[in-house]
Amino acid sequence: MRPAPRDDVVAMEGYHSPQVDVDVRLNTNESPLGPPASFVAELTDAIAGVEWHRYPDRAARDLRAAIGSLHGRGHEQVFAANGSNEVLQSLCLAYGGPGRRAVTFEPTYALHGHIARVTGTEVVSAPRRDDFTLDLDVVRRTLESAQPTLTFLCSPNNPTGLVEPQEVVETVVEVATSLGSLVVVDEAYGQFAPWSAASLLDEELPLVVTRTYSKTWAMAAARLGYALAPTWVVDELEKVVLPYHLDAVTQLAGTLAVGHLAEMEARVAQLVEERGRLVAELAQLPVTVWPSGANFVLFRPDARAGDEVWKLLVERSVLVRNCASWPGLDDCLRVTIGTRDEDDAFLAALREILT
Amino acid sequence: MRPAPRDDVVAMEGYHSPQVDVDVRLNTNESPLGPPASFVAELTDAIAGVEWHRYPDRAARDLRAAIGSLHGRGHEQVFAANGSNEVLQSLCLAYGGPGRRAVTFEPTYALHGHIARVTGTEVVSAPRRDDFTLDLDVVRRTLESAQPTLTFLCSPNNPTGLVEPQEVVETVVEVATSLGSLVVVDEAYGQFAPWSAASLLDEELPLVVTRTYSKTWAMAAARLGYALAPTWVVDELEKVVLPYHLDAVTQLAGTLAVGHLAEMEARVAQLVEERGRLVAELAQLPVTVWPSGANFVLFRPDARAGDEVWKLLVERSVLVRNCASWPGLDDCLRVTIGTRDEDDAFLAALREILT
Repeated sequence: MRPAPRDDVVAMEGYHSPQVDVDVRLNTNESPLGPPASFVAELTDAIAGVEWHRYPDRAARDLRAAIGSLHGRGHEQVFAANGSNEVLQSLCLAYGGPGRRAVTFEPTYALHGHIARVTGTEVVSAPRRDDFTLDLDVVRRTLESAQPTLTFLCSPNNPTGLVEPQEVVETVVEVATSLGSLVVVDEAYGQFAPWSAASLLDEELPLVVTRTYSKTWAMAAARLGYALAPTWVVDELEKVVLPYHLDAVTQLAGTLAVGHLAEMEARVAQLVEERGRLVAELAQLPVTVWPSGANFVLFRPDARAGDEVWKLLVERSVLVRNCASWPGLDDCLRVTIGTRDEDDAFLAALREILT
Repeated sequence: MRPAPRDDVVAMEGYHSPQVDVDVRLNTNESPLGPPASFVAELTDAIAGVEWHRYPDRAARDLRAAIGSLHGRGHEQVFAANGSNEVLQSLCLAYGGPGRRAVTFEPTYALHGHIARVTGTEVVSAPRRDDFTLDLDVVRRTLESAQPTLTFLCSPNNPTGLVEPQEVVETVVEVATSLGSLVVVDEAYGQFAPWSAASLLDEELPLVVTRTYSKTWAMAAARLGYALAPTWVVDELEKVVLPYHLDAVTQLAGTLAVGHLAEMEARVAQLVEERGRLVAELAQLPVTVWPSGANFVLFRPDARAGDEVWKLLVERSVLVRNCASWPGLDDCLRVTIGTRDEDDAFLAALREILT
């Protein structure tokens, strides 16, 4: 008799990108450029010194101190893990779990709900307005009715690109505080946005901000994410995360990258500028475009099916993310900001398809 | 109001090794030697080619194929993760969870129970005999009464060092099969033992064998473990594990290491021989020693408190694992097989303390 797996966990099939062979890949919000050569050289040198047969630093002290220095915080207010997904999983394991609820506002990053469910946390989802902004009355009613231990926001929101305004985050935190709920603001794309909820962090507030090295730090290959949080949250995350979860090279990469902040910021500024150009070009085409604070843009062809446009783009060797079948995102496609050449190839293909 | 974390998860304080400054570290079962220089050179070359800004292969296809080739299996019968701890966590998330039970036989690797609890799985523990062997009547009664979805064995068992005999594993699998329970044989130290449960693997049996690169492959820094399992188990593990959980360097390290099998096997043979010497020397001292199929040996001073002997060893700059306070292991200490020099330093210190 084959043991039965849990029946409350389903694979995220729709989340997988199809394997297609194209020249221009603008589907996973990677950085179009690698990290600075000086960083890679420094990391390569450091890797030569790794004692492979020894366990890495279990507490990842240097890494957490380096990340903390970016945000004016101590290592005890930083939790690091294998991608921000593992940060989210640790939050769910510590504060969610059997008999507890997490709230998401859809559409948003699908892994919030998925990871919560996998950890046995019940997920209560409430809708955003048609323009993807949050209705604070809906937020209040949902939290009061669900009594969640975790409330997820995503700013800039994936895949819509919208940045939650500061007053919205403040209100959500205020409601959550009165209910004993922890607010997690997923800022995987935070450095592309004009403000960060990290500015609200306080030892007395139930607020956590998560970040990743995958996007702005151009280090998707390294799988490193982190949370900025009150020390009492970090302490709880350390209880549930697997011991020695961060390998030696990942710790080195994340620590050394922090020494290259200026170059990273220059790349972010360049991508933000390129985003402005891409949005302006899209505005000339028969598509609806949502304002983005991230390194991607969501758009919807006005008079063509999203699926069809996606396929025609693939035929022209351009891959974007097909969100057309995602709930609340009928016919929508999401394009990552690439290099100017990559974006021009995308725009030319889209123009040809739509006009 | 501070959100309350789950009250059913406790930190594994006793599992942390104390931070002490010593010359001889024989406490975490690391390999005393690094991996072959040729492997490190090959890996360093390969790392130079990493595209840091791109996501790694989500399916870890090359790595899983390389591991499969070690065991005469295809990649679809291999699941790889960040240390065998993440393999165990994935097993608990897929087959454990709320309302389900896992069985452990104590004393054994403490993380089996801890990870199960963190994933919301209830843990039912049954005792081993005083000599740390399994009583199959106890196994049968425990499984029939607990009706677990997961049954954990550990062979060689950590921290006792005992190898489960083949007929014991076969019987446990037989009982588990009739109950729809998945048997997980943790073989973190499997290559040091005379037989492996991997020889029993079959698509029709509910049996999973887990392994790690930390010990025999001398790659504790890389945090890489894997499961050999029927394809239908691997499919379930892929549903619950975080997407892109394995970074690019970890995948490279694990893939390239497989090309250095002969050197790895020579190191294992050397450690097994050194284990024989260490056990023979310990037999000359007033301690009880358990037969070990691993790269460590459990022993108990006959007439001295384990805590006291541990402290006196630290004073002589030798760190072993203090298991004296672990349930069922009163006064026991565990020493990792080191280099001949390290082991001689340990033996000299212990001899001085005990005689």
